[in-house]
Formats: sequence, C-alpha cells, structure tokens
Amino acid sequence: MRITWIALLCLSLVGCGSEGGKTGAAAEAQPEQTFSWKLVTTWPKNFPGLGLAPEHFAENVARMSNGRLKIKVFGAGQLVPAFEVFDAVSQGTAEMGHGAAYYWQGKIPASAFFTAVPFGLNAQEMNAWLHYGGGLELWRELYEPFNLVPYAGGNTGVQMAGWFNREINSMADIKGLKMRIPGLGGEVFTRAGGMSVQRSGGEIYTSMQTGEIDAAEWVGPYNDLAFGFHQIAKYYYYPGWQEPGPTLELIINKQALESLPDDLQAIVESAARAANQNMLDEYTARNNAALIELVETHGVQVKKLPDDVLAELQRISTMVVDEMAAENPLAKRITDSMRVFAKQSKAYHGISEEAYYKARGQE
Amino acid sequence: MRITWIALLCLSLVGCGSEGGKTGAAAEAQPEQTFSWKLVTTWPKNFPGLGLAPEHFAENVARMSNGRLKIKVFGAGQLVPAFEVFDAVSQGTAEMGHGAAYYWQGKIPASAFFTAVPFGLNAQEMNAWLHYGGGLELWRELYEPFNLVPYAGGNTGVQMAGWFNREINSMADIKGLKMRIPGLGGEVFTRAGGMSVQRSGGEIYTSMQTGEIDAAEWVGPYNDLAFGFHQIAKYYYYPGWQEPGPTLELIINKQALESLPDDLQAIVESAARAANQNMLDEYTARNNAALIELVETHGVQVKKLPDDVLAELQRISTMVVDEMAAENPLAKRITDSMRVFAKQSKAYHGISEEAYYKARGQE
Repeated sequence: MRITWIALLCLSLVGCGSEGGKTGAAAEAQPEQTFSWKLVTTWPKNFPGLGLAPEHFAENVARMSNGRLKIKVFGAGQLVPAFEVFDAVSQGTAEMGHGAAYYWQGKIPASAFFTAVPFGLNAQEMNAWLHYGGGLELWRELYEPFNLVPYAGGNTGVQMAGWFNREINSMADIKGLKMRIPGLGGEVFTRAGGMSVQRSGGEIYTSMQTGEIDAAEWVGPYNDLAFGFHQIAKYYYYPGWQEPGPTLELIINKQALESLPDDLQAIVESAARAANQNMLDEYTARNNAALIELVETHGVQVKKLPDDVLAELQRISTMVVDEMAAENPLAKRITDSMRVFAKQSKAYHGISEEAYYKARGQE
Repeated sequence: MRITWIALLCLSLVGCGSEGGKTGAAAEAQPEQTFSWKLVTTWPKNFPGLGLAPEHFAENVARMSNGRLKIKVFGAGQLVPAFEVFDAVSQGTAEMGHGAAYYWQGKIPASAFFTAVPFGLNAQEMNAWLHYGGGLELWRELYEPFNLVPYAGGNTGVQMAGWFNREINSMADIKGLKMRIPGLGGEVFTRAGGMSVQRSGGEIYTSMQTGEIDAAEWVGPYNDLAFGFHQIAKYYYYPGWQEPGPTLELIINKQALESLPDDLQAIVESAARAANQNMLDEYTARNNAALIELVETHGVQVKKLPDDVLAELQRISTMVVDEMAAENPLAKRITDSMRVFAKQSKAYHGISEEAYYKARGQE
C-alpha cells in the first residue's frame, strides 16, 4: 500500500506532473478538492438512535471518501433550532439536515406522507415503496421547489401509541386531551376530539411535567426511556397506529450535492442507505431491553388501545388522507401511489410476515 | 470540477511531483492502485432479486471508488458451479462470492444459522441480530478458518412454504415426500417423515418435472414465477416456517479484502449494507404482483399449512437446533445468542409489528 499512500499524499499536498512526463506548474493541477459540510439536525446531539444516525453517516462518508468529504454534525439548537433545519438547508446555511419530513407539514402539507401515514406502511413496506415503488421520486419532486434533495435516513419501526396519565377505554377518554402528536396522526387525533400540539423531542418532558400537555408520543421504549417519560406518565399504550414505520430524512442542499464529483455523490447515497438500515436494526435490537427496564424497574403499565378505538382512529385516518389528496395534484399522486402499494403489501404480508408472526406465536 | 478531474487524470496516468515543488521521477510515485476482482455466485446470471444483488453491488462499488475497484460478476456455472462458490473464494480463485450460507452446511453445520432458522428470526430481526446483536461477529469467527469474511448480502423476507402436488392436511401427508428444502428446514422436514434433497435454483424445475422430487421450496412469488414452478405444481403453501427471514451472503477472500486500502474496504462494507437492504425492498415491492399473476393468470391454489402441522414442525425445529448447539462450543454460542435475541424481539414485536398488522387488518 506504500505506493498508494505516497500517491495520495502527493495528491493532497502539491500539484502533479502532466501526461508525457513533462512537469506542470502547481497552478495547472491543484490538490484534489475536499469538501467541508455542516449537517444540522432536529435531535439533541448524540441522542440514541435518531441523533447517532447522522454521526455514523458522517463517519462513514469520511472513511469512504478518504477525508475528501468532511461533515460536521450539529445537534438541535447548536447552529439552528430544531424546527429551522429545513429552511437552513434550503438556503444553504448548512449543506445537510437530518430530521423528520412531517415537521415541515405547516409549510408543505404532503411532507407528512414521507414520515408516516396512520394505519399505513410499516418500516419494511415504507422502504420498499421509497426505493422500488416510486416513493423517493415523488418525495424529490415535492422538495424540488425548496432546493432540497431528500433521502431516507432511518426508520424506527412501529412506534408506541404514547404516554398517558389517564386510561383510554373509549373514544370519550380522548376528548379534550392535549397531546404531543405531530404529523397526520396529530390531525387524526384532533378530529377524534383531542388536541394535537407540536413539540421537539427535547421539549416534551417539561411540557408534560408542567401539565401543559396531558399525553405524548415520542418513539418507543429505547428512546422514551432515555428521555425519562416514565417519571411523568403512568400508562404506556400500543400499538403505534399513528406511526407504523416512520422514516427519518436526510436532506441535502441541491447546489451542494451537485458540486460533488460523481464518486462522492455515490458515497453520500450509499451512506444514506446504510444509515437508513442501521437505525431500524438498532431500534429492533434495543427496544425490548428498554421495555423490560421500563416495566420491571420503573413499574410502567403497558396497555393496548381498545379495538373499537383503533377502528375509529382508522376510519378518521382514511378521511384525513382523502382530504389531503384533494388539496393538489401532487398530493393526489403521492396518495394514490402509496395506497396502491399499501393494498398490495397488506395482501402479501397477510400470508407472509403477518402469518409467520402468528405461526411462531403458537409455541 | 475541472481541477479535480485533472488531478485524477494525472494520478491515474503518471507520477506526481513531490512535496515542496520538486519534480519526482515516475518511479517514486506510481499511479494509484486499481483492483480487478471476480465475484462468483450460486444464482443464474442476472436472476431477479438474488442474481441482481451482486450486479448492483458491483456497479455501486465501481461508482463509489471511481473505477479503482472493478468487480466482474459470474453466474452459477460460468466460472465455477453453484455449490463450489465457497471453496473458490476460500482458495482465492475468485475474490468474492454471493450465495447462501446454508449451502455449506455439509462442511460447516453451523453455517445454516446464518441463512435461516425454522421458526426463528424474520428479516427485520435477522438484520438487527447481525448488526446490533453480535451475529456478524459470530459469523466471522465461524468463517475465519476458511479464510473468508462474510457480510449480509440481501434478504428475501418470509418465504413461501413451497410447491406441492398433494394437499397437506396433516403430518401424514408429509410422510415419504421428497422435497427440495435445504438448510435446517430440510433437516426438520426429514425428521418429520419427509426426505430433504439439495438442488440449486436452476435444477429445481427439471427435478420436479421428471418426478425426481415431489415438492420444492425456492423463495416466494417474485422468484418462483420467474422459474415457472406453477407449470409443474398445483398447490402453493404458506407461511415459510423454514425460512422466515433468510439472509444471503457476500463472502470475501480475507487476503483480497486486506489488500484494499481502508477507503475501499469501507466502500465494500457500505455497498454490502446497501445491497442487503435493496434486496428486501425489491422482494417486498415485487412479491404481491407476482402472487396475483400466479393466482389470476395461472390458477395456482394458495393454501395455508394447518396449525397442527406448523406446531409439530416447530417442536421438531427446537429439537434440531438443540442438537446442533451440542455439537461444538461455537455452535452453542451462536445458538444461545440467537435464541436470547429471538425471545426478546418476539416479545417486543408482539406489541409492535405483530400488534400493528392485527390493528390494521380490522378495516
């Protein structure tokens, strides 16, 4: 490898001789270009799972590019506040961002589809729709006017329905409940008689503790334990109807991406795919141990939402998605594409993944 | 980008000047080293899903490395027969291979664990165990004496139980059945009164057509349709108890891997992660349409294995894994690690993925 390293050293420090053995001036052939990027996130710095994904992504890119693309990761509030990540990357204040598309729902309603649709695709299906079902192309079309190129940047798997201080035995118990529940799930929750409020992860604990909100969904055991929600709520409900397979996003400023040579673009793309898979692997591996700790050490009561509540939430979800589809032609195309895909994967997963869970459970 | 390209051109054609502006002789700094590798597979060339994974992997590596690592992919029989892939890569005839670990069960019994365990981990769980549960480290330990470094190289998701020419209504119907079913599933099938035989994918159709075998499991609708199994069998059974989340493998000759500089090693690793996720995405997106074609165009009858048959197969599976664990300390460590992981993910998936499938299905 000695020769390679000498060649690289030469490359990074000085100019090279030109073809045919003639010696070119340093001005003729500059050192190979390196790039230093900023990546802003909506997560607390180094937060388990969500916040580690962009860190691993940056390390992977640095290693694959042999240091030619260096990415510095900023936690929420370090460079820009959590909810300004989209604008910062759009305007080029930072070259990249990591967060969740539904945080930008106020600006782009259809962005919510690319995080999660209540009673929609789970993680396996969402990844398949994005990468083999036309989903990613639609997402890029949606972000194009904002000068952004999105990539799937992680998935937590089915989340929990959330933390509550009162039992949910019927739809009546949702009435008047003020809950941190973003995205389309939040809209459904509001239609169901509750009230959805938006909070970044780091704000939830205090809002719940001061009684400003009555309930909150965040992610699942692995992340919820890290925030200590068991200290401020009694019941932990499942299943996460509101986010069955939420996708995180990596967004890149379009000009920044296009300024990279093709090999670095390929490296970024591949590192995003790896980050996307790593996160689901991490949650799948860590959630159960965290759940055991919540139950056995902290006495949390785990409860299932009643079937009739789930059925009613599903009915409202269909209505909400119908209305969003009617808003504009692109929203309609996204909805149609997702629904066809959902119908098909539901049919096949009925005799594969779902049937297998059932068969295995007989033991 | 002009400057970068000039620098690269310079690098690939001639030597460079040394630090401080002095002109070095060409002998002092060689062109950056490039690598040309062969990748042999157990699949027919370009076979949907399984065979395309190594092709995409090679394209991705070429693009990320800017042509410094070129990998030529060979289908089964083009350079070596399907079942000689392991030895070929072990001996360095080819630098890489793509196949399934359980094909090497005759040589290394515990290899079967790294494809699939009957009633064991599904795709999501298998990926989590490999990458966040210690699985990959155990796999590397198992292949170390053979001079091979394994990576997860794809996953098909839950397979189908297979193609049969007789109905399976009880365990008695399995008696005497000669079936293409490899790996641990094959061992279980034999204990259950059937007879497992080994065939590569390309051999199944003829074996079944000539009556040499009575039944066969291959993958699922997307791949089975491509081989035309509906022309030679009547019933298509689910769920794939024998392979709930089969992992494909990318194996690399250890010296070949170590001969790469660190950035190319990272590129190979990341491309493997991408290939691994791409395959599951592809199957998830394609299986249902293929199933519809099998049923609606070709009149295939889709049937569920009876619950008592599944329960008995599960009982035998536990026994088979117990016996394998007793064979040697490494097999025991692999089994223990997988079982702890399986128990935990079964518990958490019971209130997440599985509970969600159920909730969604109420509609």
